[in-house]
Amino acid sequence: MNRSKIYRYIDEHINEHIAKLQEIIRQPSISAENIGIRECAELVKKYFEEIGCIETKIVETSGNPVVYGEYNANSNKTLIVYMMYDTQPADEPGWIVNPFAGEIIDLEPFGKCLVARGAVNTKGELRAFLNACESIKACKEEIPINLIFVAEGEEELGSRHLPEFIKKYEKKLKEANGVFFPSVDQDEKGKVVMSLGVKGIIYFELELNGKDWGYGPTEFDIHGSNKAWVDSPAWRMIQALSTMTTKDGNTVLIDGFYENVAPPSQEDLELLKKIEETFDEEVIKKEMKVERFINDLHGIEALKKYLYSPTLNIDGIWSGYIGPGTKTVLPHKIVVKIDVRLVPNMKVEEVLPKIRKHLDKHGFKEIKIRELETGYGWAKTSVKEKIVQAIINSYREFGFEPEIWPLMAGSAPFCMFNREPLNLPFISGGLGHGGRAHAPNEYLVIQEGKNVKGLATLEKSYVSMLYNFSKML
Amino acid sequence: MNRSKIYRYIDEHINEHIAKLQEIIRQPSISAENIGIRECAELVKKYFEEIGCIETKIVETSGNPVVYGEYNANSNKTLIVYMMYDTQPADEPGWIVNPFAGEIIDLEPFGKCLVARGAVNTKGELRAFLNACESIKACKEEIPINLIFVAEGEEELGSRHLPEFIKKYEKKLKEANGVFFPSVDQDEKGKVVMSLGVKGIIYFELELNGKDWGYGPTEFDIHGSNKAWVDSPAWRMIQALSTMTTKDGNTVLIDGFYENVAPPSQEDLELLKKIEETFDEEVIKKEMKVERFINDLHGIEALKKYLYSPTLNIDGIWSGYIGPGTKTVLPHKIVVKIDVRLVPNMKVEEVLPKIRKHLDKHGFKEIKIRELETGYGWAKTSVKEKIVQAIINSYREFGFEPEIWPLMAGSAPFCMFNREPLNLPFISGGLGHGGRAHAPNEYLVIQEGKNVKGLATLEKSYVSMLYNFSKML
Repeated sequence: MNRSKIYRYIDEHINEHIAKLQEIIRQPSISAENIGIRECAELVKKYFEEIGCIETKIVETSGNPVVYGEYNANSNKTLIVYMMYDTQPADEPGWIVNPFAGEIIDLEPFGKCLVARGAVNTKGELRAFLNACESIKACKEEIPINLIFVAEGEEELGSRHLPEFIKKYEKKLKEANGVFFPSVDQDEKGKVVMSLGVKGIIYFELELNGKDWGYGPTEFDIHGSNKAWVDSPAWRMIQALSTMTTKDGNTVLIDGFYENVAPPSQEDLELLKKIEETFDEEVIKKEMKVERFINDLHGIEALKKYLYSPTLNIDGIWSGYIGPGTKTVLPHKIVVKIDVRLVPNMKVEEVLPKIRKHLDKHGFKEIKIRELETGYGWAKTSVKEKIVQAIINSYREFGFEPEIWPLMAGSAPFCMFNREPLNLPFISGGLGHGGRAHAPNEYLVIQEGKNVKGLATLEKSYVSMLYNFSKML
Repeated sequence: MNRSKIYRYIDEHINEHIAKLQEIIRQPSISAENIGIRECAELVKKYFEEIGCIETKIVETSGNPVVYGEYNANSNKTLIVYMMYDTQPADEPGWIVNPFAGEIIDLEPFGKCLVARGAVNTKGELRAFLNACESIKACKEEIPINLIFVAEGEEELGSRHLPEFIKKYEKKLKEANGVFFPSVDQDEKGKVVMSLGVKGIIYFELELNGKDWGYGPTEFDIHGSNKAWVDSPAWRMIQALSTMTTKDGNTVLIDGFYENVAPPSQEDLELLKKIEETFDEEVIKKEMKVERFINDLHGIEALKKYLYSPTLNIDGIWSGYIGPGTKTVLPHKIVVKIDVRLVPNMKVEEVLPKIRKHLDKHGFKEIKIRELETGYGWAKTSVKEKIVQAIINSYREFGFEPEIWPLMAGSAPFCMFNREPLNLPFISGGLGHGGRAHAPNEYLVIQEGKNVKGLATLEKSYVSMLYNFSKML
């Protein structure tokens, strides 16, 4: 494969490639609001046809469809390319452009950026990867490895129906040697940061209302003076919640919560030691506007806490009157939104039963648990996997030594590929940078910088990765 | 005083009297939104002039003005008539009429009602009382007692600047023999229920944010995965709150909270015994949609709990993401709205220092207490006071035997007249019915019913009360 020829082609056609990113951005695909999903799926299917897939299909599920594409490179190796075509909503205040216009504007300090919903999460990379494939073919070269495209439309809803697709295509998917998720790995200073795993997540609400309880107001908030002789679901919930953690809120007191939590492996500890050389906690704290970590931890101890602790986090809580000033009511219900992050080797199916058992044991049978999304488990790929080594090689070809994180604290449904039933090594990557996912003015850097790379290098890195996958897998 | 002549006059002029109620309703006076306050004060001043006050004045305070009126009946007795000319806002959904149109519509089972903001709380009664005074004078009779009108414009904001007025007029006000608040005392079945006292109240917010704490996110909510290494103000607040009550949320664990709480007096116990004969807890429960009282209390035990317990009530609590579905954030702050109701002989100035001390003692120095309104104390008038007996006599004249509550669980700033510096007996009353104060479709019954009396009887009862005050005070 003549890579310099392909790289030159990418440079010469970069404006057309930018236009392709703009095209998919301009087709909104907001899964939470069910906007444009079908239209965007059709567009992605057309893309798969255009690069020469021998089979493309919109595969129905109980939710949004998965777009399937099979590219036959006559290779004896096969790569699953996982993609998502849905995005978050864009109704937050603060957007400086129409989030679906695909505008390219100057953003300090990067220069030209695509500023749009889905720019970096992840319609930008989806199209950039396809641009890379098209460039290979335009240069009369062959994509060096068979590809199975799996583009889902419910990532932002927790990929709840992806397992249906996987079950249906299990046999086919098992033929693959690994799974690649086209993404961008550079931080805003240009450092390449790879993550080999993610935490799992379960998101649920606890609710206590007077109707379920048999005490307190059952249907509406009543005058606050009635607290003297009527029970308060809000106080009751606070008492229940308080049994779940230590006084500092940092250790979970639910029986068996930490069961199966694995300490960092030897391989992980070695990676952590390397990270420590470049890890700058002050930058991270500044970005989050956090003054101190839990227990005033620093350095590798803070990192270990971050990556290897499961969490029981209150995302939101509300009850009664929450407007300005005073209104005296005895609220009839209280709701708490909680997410649990799971680390290896916790079992996703055990979490809610343990919480139920805890509530019952402490006498809070009346509190309802409502799962909001089907939870999923953690995922983890060893740094020794060839698919990981292939990506590291690509970064080095471009002059970057990646910082390799054995795990990240965030969650993504990679376990669906990485663990049962497929058990495939899973990695994401790409040499570029973007930011503000789930926030206003989401961006993907287009312009080439000294450290932060632009769209052309991102596409070239995908070409390089495909090459290394074909050699090393 | 020829009362039958006056009563006839009222019957004959009832349509004009209704129009007068509509007039004051049509002048909005929403203290929380600062709408129409000054205009309504001017209107009330004009009313005081029209009945022949020798002095009327709009008395400025640091907040909304008090409308003062002095009526000289050449009596050797003087009554303070306490009134409020402000109302709650009317922005709740559910209004079936324009809340400021003064519409008279049929409401089941009462017939014609004035449905409007302020209809019963308490611009309706304010104007009905003045109609009564005007009717006496129209019949060439004299109002039988000197009157000092005190109409305040901040009752719905906790009467926060009324003490300024009282201080200024202390000498004058001390000349009075008692204080009367024109109101309606019938419940929806026509039973007359008098209350001889109110609880005091303090309303405040507890807030914990990362900035004050030094731990947790300080300025905005951050990604929920950070809970692993960043503290949660929400969990911390829950732990703090949980130290304040027993597990059932019904007993307050703040040191000294119950200090000075007086048990029911012998007089109170006798009144309670009488109430028990007519008290129907099932009606009250049904109205509030409450299945059971605290600890499954019934009858007089429930009543005692209701009237003689101070409360620590959560009016509202919120933190983080409270919209539909899932969003994973670690909230940077949590706010709790709390009201404390004070019973005799608790001291209002001791409550917040005790809560501060409790939080500090349990290690929660970082939690901020923000008083939202200046609190005020309880008020209580003995059933033996002549002003109370005068009103009871009036009810009996109309054929009603009142149910007399030694205290009510709600709060009103009556202590400003009833306790230091004036120490005057304070009573409210009026033979009529209204409802839905602070709620949509607030109403005052206009039409005369078999049990529930209308506007004409309400005005007549005020005439009767003035007569009895003049005889008995």
